[in-house]
Amino acid sequence: MAMKQVANSAIKAIANSGSSSLLTRQLHASPGSKKIVGVFYKANEYFTKNPNFVGCVEGALGLRPWLESQGHQYIVTDDKEGPDCELEKHIPDLHVLISTPFHPAYVTAERIKKAKNLQLLLTAGIGSDHVDLKAAAEAGLTVAEVTGSNVVSVAEDELMRILILVRNFVPGYHQVITGDWNVAGIAYRAYDLEGKTVGTIGAGRIGKLLLQRLKPFNCNLLYHDRVKIDPELEKQTGAKFEEDLDAMLPKCDIIVINMPLTEKTRGMFDKDRIAKMKKGVLIVNNARGAIMDTQAVADACSSGHIAGYSGDVWYPQPAPKDHPWRYMPNQAMTPHISGTTIDAQLRYAAGVKDMLERYFKGEDFPEQNYIVKAGELAPQYR
Amino acid sequence: MAMKQVANSAIKAIANSGSSSLLTRQLHASPGSKKIVGVFYKANEYFTKNPNFVGCVEGALGLRPWLESQGHQYIVTDDKEGPDCELEKHIPDLHVLISTPFHPAYVTAERIKKAKNLQLLLTAGIGSDHVDLKAAAEAGLTVAEVTGSNVVSVAEDELMRILILVRNFVPGYHQVITGDWNVAGIAYRAYDLEGKTVGTIGAGRIGKLLLQRLKPFNCNLLYHDRVKIDPELEKQTGAKFEEDLDAMLPKCDIIVINMPLTEKTRGMFDKDRIAKMKKGVLIVNNARGAIMDTQAVADACSSGHIAGYSGDVWYPQPAPKDHPWRYMPNQAMTPHISGTTIDAQLRYAAGVKDMLERYFKGEDFPEQNYIVKAGELAPQYR
Repeated sequence: MAMKQVANSAIKAIANSGSSSLLTRQLHASPGSKKIVGVFYKANEYFTKNPNFVGCVEGALGLRPWLESQGHQYIVTDDKEGPDCELEKHIPDLHVLISTPFHPAYVTAERIKKAKNLQLLLTAGIGSDHVDLKAAAEAGLTVAEVTGSNVVSVAEDELMRILILVRNFVPGYHQVITGDWNVAGIAYRAYDLEGKTVGTIGAGRIGKLLLQRLKPFNCNLLYHDRVKIDPELEKQTGAKFEEDLDAMLPKCDIIVINMPLTEKTRGMFDKDRIAKMKKGVLIVNNARGAIMDTQAVADACSSGHIAGYSGDVWYPQPAPKDHPWRYMPNQAMTPHISGTTIDAQLRYAAGVKDMLERYFKGEDFPEQNYIVKAGELAPQYR
Repeated sequence: MAMKQVANSAIKAIANSGSSSLLTRQLHASPGSKKIVGVFYKANEYFTKNPNFVGCVEGALGLRPWLESQGHQYIVTDDKEGPDCELEKHIPDLHVLISTPFHPAYVTAERIKKAKNLQLLLTAGIGSDHVDLKAAAEAGLTVAEVTGSNVVSVAEDELMRILILVRNFVPGYHQVITGDWNVAGIAYRAYDLEGKTVGTIGAGRIGKLLLQRLKPFNCNLLYHDRVKIDPELEKQTGAKFEEDLDAMLPKCDIIVINMPLTEKTRGMFDKDRIAKMKKGVLIVNNARGAIMDTQAVADACSSGHIAGYSGDVWYPQPAPKDHPWRYMPNQAMTPHISGTTIDAQLRYAAGVKDMLERYFKGEDFPEQNYIVKAGELAPQYR
């Protein structure tokens, strides 16, 4: 702890010295008015339907009265793509950019280079892979998330998707709205979750919450990660550690992806790796779309090797109208939604406010929130 | 136990005496070939897609080789309605009728009167309300189910539906297949399950399994039933007993119906009772469609008083093309499917075989399987 304080002081000293070292930008706000830009999805007619709907452009995380009363400028937009977009106009002089994984403002090395005043990149939610983290680190920027804000939401959502796939919900719903009734057309590939083997790839906070929620379903639970989970939790959930991913894959009836998108995990599930899975496997992926090889997933759904695929993440986002996952068989996809329930919005809005307050006061953030700090990436992104 | 044996012997004696008392039919099979009729849903092209698909006409519960090798006649059909249907032809001389809630053969008083040889009505699954139980009891028939065969299936399915409604899955899926992407249109009414109040009306076997599966979601769990559940289970799940149903209703964010259809529960959730629920309530009903007033549910979904309704049960079944639940807003309905997963089919096929074996041998069934025995209805149907 003392070591960390010393290190922080040293970093501040370097940053404040205006040297041309790695850390050319200030870790904490200098006094005076800041220009803060938020990029969120637009709610339009939905905004007025729920007073707690703060995660959209119109809601602006509920921060406007507070930020403006403090003398700061607060620009909010959903217009984030192309050279003439609203975001691009503010890149040269913004101090803080608040973005969200649900409508990602892609912060490229080029944008970082242009953003001479930029100090702080805050993710309203979890997952900062829309930021070029290496470029951000090299530019001495701070990148932080509201760690923990989405974990319950995503774990719940994953369990919902597991059940939707295993129990074959979607064809039944289709029959209802098309005036049909054909129990056999659903039942021939509907199963109970009980007794099936479920493996999570990644057992961080979300993976652990999922294992706890799966426990009463009497499944055979497996997990793969770089390290073993706490023995107490292993005992509580009955989950078994699988050191070798490729050895785990053929054992699983259901595979859940619970790891961040990094250079190592990008495209990790390609044709070859999918071929190692059991024929008829069900896959749930609420992590990131780009962890999968898009076409390999679509092909395996068409061949039946993957018997069902569900998730809320795509690459890119918004998914274009011709994204193959929209039209592949046995998909139960949605737009990127799991971490932006009303409950989650209230959590990440509070988390962003807390970090802005600390930033203005020159205080550190909760340690687990940092994704890039003083030129270093958080362990899960290395 | 001794008392029960005496009673059973007495009943057998009465039944065998051929008296014209209440019990005019034999409780157990007389020697010789029996005519057994099964009414299931038809699989058509789906039958060959899964070797374990036994719950359909083509699969015939996997009983044909065994029954025919024993010299019995086994007729299987899905044609169950109207005076010229296949079932009607066999009513006069069948000994055993196997039916299923997923494609209910309605066994009316009139059919029972015509069925002079009928002794045994077996339900492949759970829920025998498609049989006129009073008429069956008066005719001295035995009605029995494969108790326990569906409980895990239905509890899992209920939890899936709770999550689908709370997290607002269906509009997201619609966006995907229609080429749309509008996170706000989903998020403004998507919530986490955590922290919500969930009440089950009925805490029998399914209700208890649901409470256990809900436990890790950190909800506020309530239950209403005629009697309290085991104190150990109450402690394990944290569920609180609500003696007064009408006092429980306004407390619940989510209500799950877990009681059988009886003369007392038919139409129980009418306009007045729905009005007692919280505005914005979510309802899951995998019990029986006729427990609800069909139009009152549709109206409350239209007004928004009910914010979501999901279930797999309808009245009648198959649901006609113009059934209002197919088209009401915020529904997440399917045909009757939850208890007829492949796993459940294998369980109830085994259960039906076991009861037929006992019937041929003149042995009693497992006590919990009886719905009507010796003129008496099982407690849950009284």
